Amino acid sequence: MIKIGIVGGTGYTGVELLRLLAQHPQVQVQTVTSRAKVGTQVADLFPNLRGHFDLAFTDPAQEKFTDCELVFFATPNGTAMQSVPELLNAGIKVIDLAADFRLKDIAVWEQWYGMAHACPHLLEEAVYGLPEVNRAEIAKARLVANPGCYPTAVQLGFIPLLEAGVIDPHHLIADAKSGISGAGRKANVATLMGEAGESFKAYNVSGHRHWPEICQGLNAYTPVDLTFVPHLLPMIRGIEATLYANTLRDISLEEIQSLFIQRYQNEPFVDVLPPQSHPETRNVRGVNMCQLAIHQPHKTVVILSVIDNLVKGAAGQAIQNLNIMCGLPETSGLTGVALLP
Amino acid sequence: MIKIGIVGGTGYTGVELLRLLAQHPQVQVQTVTSRAKVGTQVADLFPNLRGHFDLAFTDPAQEKFTDCELVFFATPNGTAMQSVPELLNAGIKVIDLAADFRLKDIAVWEQWYGMAHACPHLLEEAVYGLPEVNRAEIAKARLVANPGCYPTAVQLGFIPLLEAGVIDPHHLIADAKSGISGAGRKANVATLMGEAGESFKAYNVSGHRHWPEICQGLNAYTPVDLTFVPHLLPMIRGIEATLYANTLRDISLEEIQSLFIQRYQNEPFVDVLPPQSHPETRNVRGVNMCQLAIHQPHKTVVILSVIDNLVKGAAGQAIQNLNIMCGLPETSGLTGVALLP
Amino acid sequence: MIKIGIVGGTGYTGVELLRLLAQHPQVQVQTVTSRAKVGTQVADLFPNLRGHFDLAFTDPAQEKFTDCELVFFATPNGTAMQSVPELLNAGIKVIDLAADFRLKDIAVWEQWYGMAHACPHLLEEAVYGLPEVNRAEIAKARLVANPGCYPTAVQLGFIPLLEAGVIDPHHLIADAKSGISGAGRKANVATLMGEAGESFKAYNVSGHRHWPEICQGLNAYTPVDLTFVPHLLPMIRGIEATLYANTLRDISLEEIQSLFIQRYQNEPFVDVLPPQSHPETRNVRGVNMCQLAIHQPHKTVVILSVIDNLVKGAAGQAIQNLNIMCGLPETSGLTGVALLP
Amino acid sequence: MIKIGIVGGTGYTGVELLRLLAQHPQVQVQTVTSRAKVGTQVADLFPNLRGHFDLAFTDPAQEKFTDCELVFFATPNGTAMQSVPELLNAGIKVIDLAADFRLKDIAVWEQWYGMAHACPHLLEEAVYGLPEVNRAEIAKARLVANPGCYPTAVQLGFIPLLEAGVIDPHHLIADAKSGISGAGRKANVATLMGEAGESFKAYNVSGHRHWPEICQGLNAYTPVDLTFVPHLLPMIRGIEATLYANTLRDISLEEIQSLFIQRYQNEPFVDVLPPQSHPETRNVRGVNMCQLAIHQPHKTVVILSVIDNLVKGAAGQAIQNLNIMCGLPETSGLTGVALLP
Repeated sequence: MIKIGIVGGTGYTGVELLRLLAQHPQVQVQTVTSRAKVGTQVADLFPNLRGHFDLAFTDPAQEKFTDCELVFFATPNGTAMQSVPELLNAGIKVIDLAADFRLKDIAVWEQWYGMAHACPHLLEEAVYGLPEVNRAEIAKARLVANPGCYPTAVQLGFIPLLEAGVIDPHHLIADAKSGISGAGRKANVATLMGEAGESFKAYNVSGHRHWPEICQGLNAYTPVDLTFVPHLLPMIRGIEATLYANTLRDISLEEIQSLFIQRYQNEPFVDVLPPQSHPETRNVRGVNMCQLAIHQPHKTVVILSVIDNLVKGAAGQAIQNLNIMCGLPETSGLTGVALLP
Repeated sequence: MIKIGIVGGTGYTGVELLRLLAQHPQVQVQTVTSRAKVGTQVADLFPNLRGHFDLAFTDPAQEKFTDCELVFFATPNGTAMQSVPELLNAGIKVIDLAADFRLKDIAVWEQWYGMAHACPHLLEEAVYGLPEVNRAEIAKARLVANPGCYPTAVQLGFIPLLEAGVIDPHHLIADAKSGISGAGRKANVATLMGEAGESFKAYNVSGHRHWPEICQGLNAYTPVDLTFVPHLLPMIRGIEATLYANTLRDISLEEIQSLFIQRYQNEPFVDVLPPQSHPETRNVRGVNMCQLAIHQPHKTVVILSVIDNLVKGAAGQAIQNLNIMCGLPETSGLTGVALLP
Repeated sequence: MIKIGIVGGTGYTGVELLRLLAQHPQVQVQTVTSRAKVGTQVADLFPNLRGHFDLAFTDPAQEKFTDCELVFFATPNGTAMQSVPELLNAGIKVIDLAADFRLKDIAVWEQWYGMAHACPHLLEEAVYGLPEVNRAEIAKARLVANPGCYPTAVQLGFIPLLEAGVIDPHHLIADAKSGISGAGRKANVATLMGEAGESFKAYNVSGHRHWPEICQGLNAYTPVDLTFVPHLLPMIRGIEATLYANTLRDISLEEIQSLFIQRYQNEPFVDVLPPQSHPETRNVRGVNMCQLAIHQPHKTVVILSVIDNLVKGAAGQAIQNLNIMCGLPETSGLTGVALLP
Repeated sequence: MIKIGIVGGTGYTGVELLRLLAQHPQVQVQTVTSRAKVGTQVADLFPNLRGHFDLAFTDPAQEKFTDCELVFFATPNGTAMQSVPELLNAGIKVIDLAADFRLKDIAVWEQWYGMAHACPHLLEEAVYGLPEVNRAEIAKARLVANPGCYPTAVQLGFIPLLEAGVIDPHHLIADAKSGISGAGRKANVATLMGEAGESFKAYNVSGHRHWPEICQGLNAYTPVDLTFVPHLLPMIRGIEATLYANTLRDISLEEIQSLFIQRYQNEPFVDVLPPQSHPETRNVRGVNMCQLAIHQPHKTVVILSVIDNLVKGAAGQAIQNLNIMCGLPETSGLTGVALLP
């Protein structure tokens, strides 16, 4: 059994890690920390975990994780970077589910996250944990930056088109919609059910932190100009991204479909639906899967991409990265079936 | 009091007409028909109307509406066109909330609606009831085609830009999202709460009937190429359309904002929010209002447009048209405040 | 025009007061205070009010309300009692939408609300503002304690039975369910959409502050033993209370129905549905109405009671009380139609 | 591998059986029938099952299930009884998830279900599949009647009290609330999202088919008088039942808690929470578990019981019964963790 620790187990990515790891046959959660809940049983805070964990939250300031092979950070941005150097020095692998190590350009990171980076020397070493792009690097990594939820859905949809060079990279549009769990589990008026229920809106249209992350990923293929508009859905789990691109040459829907099929044929967690399908977020609720569908109304290519923001967009992808980093089968612990209805 | 009739009072646009007309000081509902509910009290089917109507549904086959000045059709597509000629001949004005008279090109209509048109000679005469565009024609009309919900939200957002000639008309994108009430009140697996709740998807990406309607409206300014993708929201009321366009020249956000302010300065039912606002659908829940906001991340212009699909997208706009057609103040009966939260 | 002030205009009862008062023909809102939002335009915080108010929040510490005839407190418990004596001395009438003046027994109040009362001498004078019970006293009152939401729904359902003496008062059960807006608009993990959406639970089963309030009201007829269990619904507006009582003698459903019809025949805001109806909360969404229905499966009487917790359960009832206190028609400003769907 | 068949795989209990069986290590689904969807791939109808089943729906009229050890009926009431005798004669075990074999009294069954029973001679043999009561009989059964959803939640809550003889059996009240999936997946106006969303109501107060089923179960302990009121929740999955009973003698909360702990100490799928807990339906979303909590405000005992109506209330309990009938570990395939949030 691989022994792991979790820093910050009281948010939605934390409880989702716990839910998924409870069902992982080769991993044992050794330690879960929470500054606010020291001493509280995990299953008292999250009663869905009753019978699955006999573990109390411990104080992160006291934890050395010396018996852990790998530590997940499910903490707010800016927390992991305070502790990661020490853990790496102690020979412990780290997967950060927050944004501390996602961007390679320190200036860009500091601009978007509004703080000084505590360990800029690690940005180069950190591997961006999108296995469909960086599998080999992840396997060798000590430190993995788990991708953001929107960036996962958007990149997986654009990559086959950019790799094949069939779309104009200067007019990419990503119209993305997320369930409320993406905003986290902190007390906040804007995410109260009375505010976010039965309503819909775009937000952060002028700039969202996931925009530079997506651009960094896509720029690896060719420099892109991307317009990214996130929206808030009146539901809990799920991201849908509708992606628009103009083709550079006459290309049929069948040919585009083939590009996607080939690109992802060996990927266990990307599922290309038949042409003109309409994936629903519930198709992937609770599971580590991205469903993609391709349309071509008139000359614009439209890609539909759905994930569960807490799974393929966070905790599930983190476990996929753990599996790769620790030499386990990549699908280990990630074989559940989505909850529908 | 202007006496009016409603054909098809059991759907969502029907009950919304009744809700709004109950509060209209100069209109009296004389007759409401329903094939399926003949003899049932309106307030027994819709208990929110208890105390507001003492009226039973009557048989549309028997109704001549001879005491009515104007008749609304809140019926499925293809129904109004069977009866409209007779009503017009009897001197009765008609507003059709369905699509029978929205398209000028008979071939396009028959292709998208899959049936032969029963009175093509009226298509030319029928006025498309978007008051912000056709107010003068509506005032003189005998027959008004009330716009679709998506077309209202999308056209109001693009029109100032096309009128001013500042955007490239060949790469317009409308990513639109609607609450489930837009799908009507008929028994249907796809719109069960168990199917549509807590999930989100695009639908009809390859072609939606509102696409030719929007194009017809926008083509009046300049020929456009529009990609239109509708999505289904897990909520009841509200449409949000996020519109994307490339500018043809350097133009500042302030200048675009001015275009919108000027275009709609005298419009009682279009409200241009301050630059970079994020309108929520709940801001207009239950009221006849379109809220617009303008953003300009990088070089693309992004317009956010929200309406209540049943009000400014259907029954409210129909009453606005009635007011114009009958010489009433345009805001009569439409001065309510949106229900928030 | 009656000039009024509102203390605490940023919560859900505050914005609901503003929504309803915007449509009140004889009342003008002169002042709205908020400690946290001094200087902010009301319509910037609540965009549904755009065009209806040109008013900024002011500092409650600075306001004397000298130009107001009546002041509403839409504040947390314990706030109104600090300022009410001064306002009454200045000849200004007060309606408190919180609980400061609802209970007559100071010891009970201090036990349940966990603080010392600032003006216990006013408890005797304060009139409990349930117009269906205390209309005459309300008309003469300087200070009205607006009832709680659950207490309104529960009392209106039990009163006809207790008045008629046909039920055993020692085994009353009220199983009540409320939408999330009843929990207010403050930042709070428990009422996040991620916590309260798509789930349902009972809460405060061992004791809820509305229990002594309901008991006080029912004890006026005969001493009662009441079990009251509140539950949280995954929706925004609406309370449903299912009430259970054992009859003391053989009594038919028709006879019970008659009791209710007679009791409420002159009440504009209580609507007794036909026997065996099943009122839905949406029937009264946004309006000042209580719908009641009576059932008698086997020997137990079951009363179903629905209100909108923010209207008949808060702001609407407060305006009903204002109308009575100020000699206006009781239904003034309260004639809207519920929003369905 | 135990080979099984499913009759009627297109409803919510059908797809839930498929979801759970996909994860069952000792069971293989051989055949799934559907009259309406013959030839359609299971995973085309339910895209959450992509990659888990390579199986098309077959025609129930043609299926003999000769290679199956056990067949589930996930069909409307009145369907299973047409085919069960033939299957039993062929040596195939049957679990009916509908109501055909739940009631022992043929007259009561025919009254509540409004049809003649096709094989009344099997009612005596059929075992009511509540493992916490009938485990030994289930182990020997050829035919198991899987309990209804409400009856599971209500019986598990009352049984310890009735067994111990500590409550008055003549004044039992069960106020139960269910998510919309309990109403099935058939086209129906009443369960549209536009009708059932953002609203709440009681239904069938005068009589619900689960009332005689619950009474039959409880009468096994002592004759009871039960008032049962079901309600419809604006969410998809979950049942909460709040149960009220009067104690026959002075008994402390601790003593009642002990009764429950002892009664269910060896039950893998009943979890008694600490006293005064408030179980939420999401605690058990997607899993085969009943969480119970005990309260005692004043003299009435209040039991809170939550299940997922599609799991412990249907498909999960059916698999629990299969495990018992086929000699598998009772928890096989049922060890998942509830999806929260």
